[in-house]
Amino acid sequence: MYIILVYDVSEKRVFKVLKIARKYITWIQNSVLEGEISKGNYEKFKVEIRKTIKPEEDSILFYIIRDLKYTSKENIGIIKNTDEKFF
Amino acid sequence: MYIILVYDVSEKRVFKVLKIARKYITWIQNSVLEGEISKGNYEKFKVEIRKTIKPEEDSILFYIIRDLKYTSKENIGIIKNTDEKFF
Repeated sequence: MYIILVYDVSEKRVFKVLKIARKYITWIQNSVLEGEISKGNYEKFKVEIRKTIKPEEDSILFYIIRDLKYTSKENIGIIKNTDEKFF
Repeated sequence: MYIILVYDVSEKRVFKVLKIARKYITWIQNSVLEGEISKGNYEKFKVEIRKTIKPEEDSILFYIIRDLKYTSKENIGIIKNTDEKFF
């Protein structure tokens, strides 16, 4: 599976959230990470995130894409992460 | 089609970009909007965005989902837009 994560987290916790997220997927743009992940790692990922954020203040959104065939990406402006391995 | 937009735009232009984006799709979370859009409106949307941003400073990312069947969404923490019509 492939996931896109967007976070809206208090500044106090941004570094921690990013540190966790980067273990699993790749930074794309401010507040956005994406990448291929196994079901097991996705579950671990969420456990770590839940332990770190304040649920009454922070918001984490996962888009889970089961089949990339039906999804494409278009960029306007600078591409902040130019790693070619991303779809 | 359904699109997710994430923006990483200089503060000077955030208001303008948001104003345009909200004509077409719906605000979900800081830096994220999403919604159903026709192909024609998506093209118009991009023209407006291109006129507004500075391509050497700003970054706009569109995820285009042709079939929502293969995509799901999961939220951790507060849900900033609770409008039920979103998938």
